Amino acid sequence: MLPFNSLVSSSQLTPEIIVELFRATDEMAAIISKAGTHKLLDDKIVALLFFEPSSRTMLSFQTAAQRLKAGTVFAQSSSSTSFEKGESIEDLIRIVAGYADIIVMRHSQPGSAAIAAEVSEVPFINAGDGGNEHPTQSIIDSYTIFREKGRLSNLNIVFGFDSLQSRSIHSLSRLLAQYPDNRFVFTGPEKLLPDQNLLNELTAAGVRCEVQSEVDYRDNYDVIYVNRLQEERFDDVKLFEENRRKYRITKKDVEGSDAILLDPLPRIDEIAVEVDALPNAVYFEQASYGVPVRMALLASLLGKI
Amino acid sequence: MLPFNSLVSSSQLTPEIIVELFRATDEMAAIISKAGTHKLLDDKIVALLFFEPSSRTMLSFQTAAQRLKAGTVFAQSSSSTSFEKGESIEDLIRIVAGYADIIVMRHSQPGSAAIAAEVSEVPFINAGDGGNEHPTQSIIDSYTIFREKGRLSNLNIVFGFDSLQSRSIHSLSRLLAQYPDNRFVFTGPEKLLPDQNLLNELTAAGVRCEVQSEVDYRDNYDVIYVNRLQEERFDDVKLFEENRRKYRITKKDVEGSDAILLDPLPRIDEIAVEVDALPNAVYFEQASYGVPVRMALLASLLGKI
Amino acid sequence: MLPFNSLVSSSQLTPEIIVELFRATDEMAAIISKAGTHKLLDDKIVALLFFEPSSRTMLSFQTAAQRLKAGTVFAQSSSSTSFEKGESIEDLIRIVAGYADIIVMRHSQPGSAAIAAEVSEVPFINAGDGGNEHPTQSIIDSYTIFREKGRLSNLNIVFGFDSLQSRSIHSLSRLLAQYPDNRFVFTGPEKLLPDQNLLNELTAAGVRCEVQSEVDYRDNYDVIYVNRLQEERFDDVKLFEENRRKYRITKKDVEGSDAILLDPLPRIDEIAVEVDALPNAVYFEQASYGVPVRMALLASLLGKI
Repeated sequence: MLPFNSLVSSSQLTPEIIVELFRATDEMAAIISKAGTHKLLDDKIVALLFFEPSSRTMLSFQTAAQRLKAGTVFAQSSSSTSFEKGESIEDLIRIVAGYADIIVMRHSQPGSAAIAAEVSEVPFINAGDGGNEHPTQSIIDSYTIFREKGRLSNLNIVFGFDSLQSRSIHSLSRLLAQYPDNRFVFTGPEKLLPDQNLLNELTAAGVRCEVQSEVDYRDNYDVIYVNRLQEERFDDVKLFEENRRKYRITKKDVEGSDAILLDPLPRIDEIAVEVDALPNAVYFEQASYGVPVRMALLASLLGKI
Repeated sequence: MLPFNSLVSSSQLTPEIIVELFRATDEMAAIISKAGTHKLLDDKIVALLFFEPSSRTMLSFQTAAQRLKAGTVFAQSSSSTSFEKGESIEDLIRIVAGYADIIVMRHSQPGSAAIAAEVSEVPFINAGDGGNEHPTQSIIDSYTIFREKGRLSNLNIVFGFDSLQSRSIHSLSRLLAQYPDNRFVFTGPEKLLPDQNLLNELTAAGVRCEVQSEVDYRDNYDVIYVNRLQEERFDDVKLFEENRRKYRITKKDVEGSDAILLDPLPRIDEIAVEVDALPNAVYFEQASYGVPVRMALLASLLGKI
Repeated sequence: MLPFNSLVSSSQLTPEIIVELFRATDEMAAIISKAGTHKLLDDKIVALLFFEPSSRTMLSFQTAAQRLKAGTVFAQSSSSTSFEKGESIEDLIRIVAGYADIIVMRHSQPGSAAIAAEVSEVPFINAGDGGNEHPTQSIIDSYTIFREKGRLSNLNIVFGFDSLQSRSIHSLSRLLAQYPDNRFVFTGPEKLLPDQNLLNELTAAGVRCEVQSEVDYRDNYDVIYVNRLQEERFDDVKLFEENRRKYRITKKDVEGSDAILLDPLPRIDEIAVEVDALPNAVYFEQASYGVPVRMALLASLLGKI
């Protein structure tokens, strides 16, 4: 049993909670590989409210619910709902909480998840509220690291290439800052390096933080965690083109290395397709863990684990 | 068993039918609270065709079907279907009737539901055909009144604030006109009062009808049923602003009153948020009855009750 | 068991495969009529990726999966997914293959299905890749002919009215070219007649091919297979109007004839509505076979038949 009814922020994910969720995730992974489905949530309805484009998150929550035989009901994209009529998030959540047993919501407005969790009479999961939080991604990311490396402490990690805006990097770095002896090297275009507040926060928590404009990926790293650059962040196309060639991991960067490669996906240029075949390219496994992680979370919040 | 295969109009909802549907709704509410789900429609497929934005209606029909373990299949919004290619409603319904066991349709075109029900070889439910009819809403509204007040006769009801265009108000007032000793007071901006035809029809059926530009909500009312004003109905913004301040129920209007407050939702300005905490604010319960009412209707039309 | 994991092209549909799929389809049709649903795929998740408008295909795949109690998860229309961010089809398919047990995809890009099948680690079904292929339609079409006529050989068939662009006509004509003693008469506006390559290919396979600007439907035909004309293919509106009046089947054309009428639908003008009531108008039955055909295909590719 989790000590909360709703997951809004990755700051709720203490090491104790993480241990519990990983154990539940292992159980769910065993269900998938042995039986495909299980009747654990056969008596439940999961509402999926996706008011912002998504494919992975939407599909993996749907799959997670259905592998546990829950019903899934959903409203997708603001344009096919009544939101445009001026209804508040509070009202919509109160209504949906009267229908379903648990609510999963993605919404473009930062802070919307906290508002929703506050008024919901059923458990609530934040599936991304704008640039703010995406806590289930942090569980997936840390679960992938733990499966591959056997620990969340004493890790030497590169984070790139847009650490400034990535909610995935913010949340994962904070989550891992709870564990001892971690070192984070942030890399990427200067304007997309993490802001000083985050660096101070991580350092205060005990992480050795560094910022490097160029990284030798063959150094002794355990994890290389990268995301895509977004063209619209660059004033001029030439600068963008320069950066996308520079901040791009190729086969010769990581072949034979012990470092595992993670990417929250979608992948654009940040990892060359030739890298996919390497044994340390684990980003598609990472994506696939979205299902057992979300099964574990749904079952836990519904009091079935 | 209902004496019809399809529900197109609330004019089909005679007092005998209403009694039967309320009894079935009570059974469904008991399933929800005791078991969550039931296999009653385990062998059925419900097609949900939503060719107009919706959130509550779509989600509650999905939930209703899935709490009875029916499969749900759907096409949402005209832009993601073949309608735009010029296919007729008749053809689409004939095709979907060859797939599913029952069809639920929302469509912007008034009269589309009657056309669909006519050609469908499987039971059909109108989930709103433009400004014309939305009969399942009437069942929900009357069920809420019956649960709260124990009767559908001898009621003193305020209807506001746009009685002219509201299919919910048209349908509910007609449904209640079948019961003796009811009094309806219509209020709202002058141009949004009900048209004389409706007033004549209700009066002929035995209802005492009144129209008041202002209402004292602390008078001896049993039910206050309000909906939102729509800005686009006013020629000038100033007039709209005046009306939205005037036709708005606040805490002091209804605190301590015996009158229950209903709203088909979404709510914009017509009820102040401070009212939500009052025990007579039952509009979120009203919304939640959408699920057992629609379960009862699906099960009845599919011959399982 | 089929000798392939994925269905990408109707060229995979040899007579041996067709026999097997028809037998499985008959079994599925019996499940629908006797029980409605069956637990055959109770342990499976079907991912439906529809990146192009559809109603029939989407709804019938959903229905097929749910009648076999599979979970269905989906992303509908490119605008509600991450595709727009520049993610490749390969990446999306790899990710979804990590969630679901089988993938069904419709995509506007010709050749996308072959790309997807190549990278997918789970079985894959092409539900239409632009103007290229739509192999499940060919199974439905040939199954309808076989049910009605008892054979796929020795058939005298009219194809109209846009044989140039119709992937349904291309695929069905090629499929039937594998059987002996067939004769195909293509009709329609001159600019929409099949291209010479297709005619050569069919002739080489043993079909007697003819092209006629006008056809007497009361001649000794077994099957009349027509599709709609598309206005945008005509330079001037007058020419389009002329053709839509000319290439239109009316009651007097086919009443009392032994020829069955097929249409992949949607139907616009190519068949007058008055024809629907004739016993040889089988296009709505044809559409309904989409469900058992797709049940058979899902179950076969998932190794359950």
